[in-house]
Amino acid sequence: MARTRLVIDTDPGVDDAVAILLALASDELDVLALTTVAGNVGVDKTTLNARRLVDLAGRPDVVVARGCAAPLASDLDEAGDVHGLDGLGDIAWPEPRTPESDEHAVDLIARLAAEAPLTIAAIGPLTNLALLQARYPGVEARVERVVIMGGASFAGNVTAAAEFNVWADPEAAARVLAGPWPITLMPLDLTHQATLGDDDLEYLRGLDTEVGRRTAAILEPYAAFHDQWYGNRDVIMHDAMTIYELLVPDAIEKQGAHVVVETGGAHTRGATVIDRRRGFASSPTRVGVSLDNPAFVAFVRERLARYPLG
Amino acid sequence: MARTRLVIDTDPGVDDAVAILLALASDELDVLALTTVAGNVGVDKTTLNARRLVDLAGRPDVVVARGCAAPLASDLDEAGDVHGLDGLGDIAWPEPRTPESDEHAVDLIARLAAEAPLTIAAIGPLTNLALLQARYPGVEARVERVVIMGGASFAGNVTAAAEFNVWADPEAAARVLAGPWPITLMPLDLTHQATLGDDDLEYLRGLDTEVGRRTAAILEPYAAFHDQWYGNRDVIMHDAMTIYELLVPDAIEKQGAHVVVETGGAHTRGATVIDRRRGFASSPTRVGVSLDNPAFVAFVRERLARYPLG
Amino acid sequence: MARTRLVIDTDPGVDDAVAILLALASDELDVLALTTVAGNVGVDKTTLNARRLVDLAGRPDVVVARGCAAPLASDLDEAGDVHGLDGLGDIAWPEPRTPESDEHAVDLIARLAAEAPLTIAAIGPLTNLALLQARYPGVEARVERVVIMGGASFAGNVTAAAEFNVWADPEAAARVLAGPWPITLMPLDLTHQATLGDDDLEYLRGLDTEVGRRTAAILEPYAAFHDQWYGNRDVIMHDAMTIYELLVPDAIEKQGAHVVVETGGAHTRGATVIDRRRGFASSPTRVGVSLDNPAFVAFVRERLARYPLG
Amino acid sequence: MARTRLVIDTDPGVDDAVAILLALASDELDVLALTTVAGNVGVDKTTLNARRLVDLAGRPDVVVARGCAAPLASDLDEAGDVHGLDGLGDIAWPEPRTPESDEHAVDLIARLAAEAPLTIAAIGPLTNLALLQARYPGVEARVERVVIMGGASFAGNVTAAAEFNVWADPEAAARVLAGPWPITLMPLDLTHQATLGDDDLEYLRGLDTEVGRRTAAILEPYAAFHDQWYGNRDVIMHDAMTIYELLVPDAIEKQGAHVVVETGGAHTRGATVIDRRRGFASSPTRVGVSLDNPAFVAFVRERLARYPLG
Repeated sequence: MARTRLVIDTDPGVDDAVAILLALASDELDVLALTTVAGNVGVDKTTLNARRLVDLAGRPDVVVARGCAAPLASDLDEAGDVHGLDGLGDIAWPEPRTPESDEHAVDLIARLAAEAPLTIAAIGPLTNLALLQARYPGVEARVERVVIMGGASFAGNVTAAAEFNVWADPEAAARVLAGPWPITLMPLDLTHQATLGDDDLEYLRGLDTEVGRRTAAILEPYAAFHDQWYGNRDVIMHDAMTIYELLVPDAIEKQGAHVVVETGGAHTRGATVIDRRRGFASSPTRVGVSLDNPAFVAFVRERLARYPLG
Repeated sequence: MARTRLVIDTDPGVDDAVAILLALASDELDVLALTTVAGNVGVDKTTLNARRLVDLAGRPDVVVARGCAAPLASDLDEAGDVHGLDGLGDIAWPEPRTPESDEHAVDLIARLAAEAPLTIAAIGPLTNLALLQARYPGVEARVERVVIMGGASFAGNVTAAAEFNVWADPEAAARVLAGPWPITLMPLDLTHQATLGDDDLEYLRGLDTEVGRRTAAILEPYAAFHDQWYGNRDVIMHDAMTIYELLVPDAIEKQGAHVVVETGGAHTRGATVIDRRRGFASSPTRVGVSLDNPAFVAFVRERLARYPLG
Repeated sequence: MARTRLVIDTDPGVDDAVAILLALASDELDVLALTTVAGNVGVDKTTLNARRLVDLAGRPDVVVARGCAAPLASDLDEAGDVHGLDGLGDIAWPEPRTPESDEHAVDLIARLAAEAPLTIAAIGPLTNLALLQARYPGVEARVERVVIMGGASFAGNVTAAAEFNVWADPEAAARVLAGPWPITLMPLDLTHQATLGDDDLEYLRGLDTEVGRRTAAILEPYAAFHDQWYGNRDVIMHDAMTIYELLVPDAIEKQGAHVVVETGGAHTRGATVIDRRRGFASSPTRVGVSLDNPAFVAFVRERLARYPLG
Repeated sequence: MARTRLVIDTDPGVDDAVAILLALASDELDVLALTTVAGNVGVDKTTLNARRLVDLAGRPDVVVARGCAAPLASDLDEAGDVHGLDGLGDIAWPEPRTPESDEHAVDLIARLAAEAPLTIAAIGPLTNLALLQARYPGVEARVERVVIMGGASFAGNVTAAAEFNVWADPEAAARVLAGPWPITLMPLDLTHQATLGDDDLEYLRGLDTEVGRRTAAILEPYAAFHDQWYGNRDVIMHDAMTIYELLVPDAIEKQGAHVVVETGGAHTRGATVIDRRRGFASSPTRVGVSLDNPAFVAFVRERLARYPLG
């Protein structure tokens, strides 16, 4: 079976890191590039972090290309208290050897899509993808699939109504979700079902690999944040849902829906309105609903164990 | 134990009718008045229906007072396809004997609240209560409790985001929900758990009472509507949740929350944003979350069986 | 010719005071009542000020009835820095002899309109009139004319887009301006053409009347405010435009227009959108455009000179 | 004195054509490129029209580069009834010889700005400039000046509140107007003062030049449209204001202001809120206020007469 040509559009970010490491451990995916965007922290930091993660995974073939530093049509507000000031839990890292590409994220994605069918996993604000649509009209036809971590059916996290990735650039999210490409959306109500516990961090530490140790190290302050905010240390694996979906297509139950983004409103800016009422069951837009967490945890353990000892 | 002095503010409406009949069958409640409002149908019809229901229950002591014919600050859009053109399933009714009060709904509620502590069950759009607040400043302090059917945590019914009662007058709902009175809100995600089935309609028909026969008769087209819209004939008892809460306080599980109404927005006008995040657990505003439907059904059967044979 | 039966709905307010004193000096108008509303200052103060002004004019026959303390569907923000902390320039006043009516402003207006055709001069936020419409459906048909000071074609005063009276209660203004009654609107672009200068204050002081002295005294700090904000001491006679229009119908040039109020928006809440494009020339809603200020000033001087010496 | 390196970002459009022909007749301006955008008509047509105009002016050195086909974050609505179905009054044109550049409008502008200081005259929707900001962060520092035709202080044209260029892409306009570059804005209240009459069309026809004949020909249906809409045949020279400002800096009186764009609102989407209140007199954003139309007309006649006979 052909490997999926994948670009991961990302703002690492602790759970971005787990998603990226899962992807880079998986032969089914041909990860061509990490494209970066401002979100959890600024784009200088997310680009640096992307280079660190490619180094950590021992994958210098993966291009790191910088994308947008600011939302499409509004102001940036970072989430540094969740992911550490540097976006990766503020642990020490060696100077990355993987260079930053000279190509802009958006030009790179357009070029890769022109070469052959492309899949995009979007795990940060959707600024780059909206800019891609604006700069390269018709590009959607050359993208096989967009799997997005974003939105919320029930309750947001940044506000009572809005999830961070959509809230951080609602106009971009609105454009991406309205585009003529097949979208799978992983909202908070799904992602909150996917968690790693202290025993999983212990397992990672015990792998005796650089990936295992560093993953556990960046998850440690993230667990402390979860403890403070949600009342227990289980860390939520939001972004990994996109990679899990690509690797184990039946693991996540999905529904057809019509999804729009509220960009106005006094209380609902950045909210996703996910309409599952009759008529939308067969929509090309699919929304993740539920998964079996023990199966997911076993999957994460197995994949992350593939990295070399040392 | 003292009986609860109750006004039911209502736009009957089929499920309003069940709520009202439950209340009028219950000695724990001293139902002083039905105040009417435009909503499911116009206020001429909801007032006529309120008079019919008081007649049907044999309770000429209950005052029927007409309230607002139009939303506080927007235009009226009826829901006649759900409740029939007359709001009560379009069955034949005798000319009602109970008169309409000369007093306006809002003046009546203010007078009753001035006499002694009052509870309000609000099962239509919240126009009358917002007008009460505007015309009688400070009235909130003389109201013991407001139990409201309205809003939605997850998905609306009129729009993907908004529930009918709130959507029908968002500005009024925003004012009522921001008011300094203890509010219990019964949103769609709760009310959809409370249903009557065909066997219950059969039971009501078999009671050999006018109340049983008429209740079954108005629920019949409502079941057909549910079949068409939701794919099964179980009828949802939205409004009855307010009376059930008053009569069996522990039957419905509730959470503290901060609730606001979106009045702007391109996709979310009339949505309730129900914030359950940390800090709101002890909020005076309580939101219904879950109930045991078999217990509720048994309760409905028992109460409606109290009406006289004939 | 029959005298115009007039209610002045007001939040005095320095320029409200001039408008009221003009009206009370004019035999053409049968001023039945001042109804008060929160605006320039809270309704306790505007009601007190209305009583002071009726006393000052020697017109104990004019009823003072208290209206709304808060906007229809939003929060109150006073304008105390413009009109002084007490709303009338913070000069000393005797304890007023005119009592506050037991009747609510809205009930009073409805009763007066039911008795005979009524004109309303609305020179504060439009909360009372919107509440009148909500509580007394159909009342618009019994009102001959509503003359409103409010809105702006070009530039606001509270915000770059919004004028105070409309901004202070946009939902109420939207309802009133959409109502089926003949409206004449006096926006800022008109009212800024109507000013009194230092020589006019000197003239008022020199009248040797209590009205003259007090009017000059309350205009003095208002002139200082204008000097600071607009760069000259000429005081703008916003509210007096409504009374001038009633007394000298041809003095103010007017145009037909369609007027709506923006209640949403990030920058334009409370703005009046005044559409004068083709098709609206014959609209029943008329908007004041221009006047001859020397003629207006002469009119003010002549009318205010009618009060008794002493 | 150095010639101004100029890009005209445009959606021709009849009055765009006059602006472009004025610029191309003027040695003070080094017109490097016309960049096109969807607006008056779609971008296929505006690009074709730009090529036609460059041909007409005999200026094959001017690059024509295609830009955005759709607004940044909303849907396109053309203005074909104003400018004819083809955007240039539906007269016959020869097949253009000037090719379309391979470079995207936005990449071209960025490259030109990187080479040396650049001025931009923006006379269509602002999509290209917002995309430029998004794709080339920091580009604003390399742009000397942006002169924009857009917005309205008093009354819009597409809606009562909004002018076409801003209304056609409010999110883009909001980003451009908030950017750190010196902006001069020419709103409707200025541009409506700049008109050509039937005698000017006669003059153009009488020049015995291809430019004169064609300009008169495309202005003829535009005059008919003005006659129908505004009640007289004088054609409004909106877009030419930007070129006039660049060529005769003192001809247009300007004020400092703070300008924001309303993207929300029920009645005001696309409105420019132009705040001229105290504190903004020295703002780097300047707004055109007034001009002497006879002087402007003389200027247009003189410049357009520079084109060769034939």
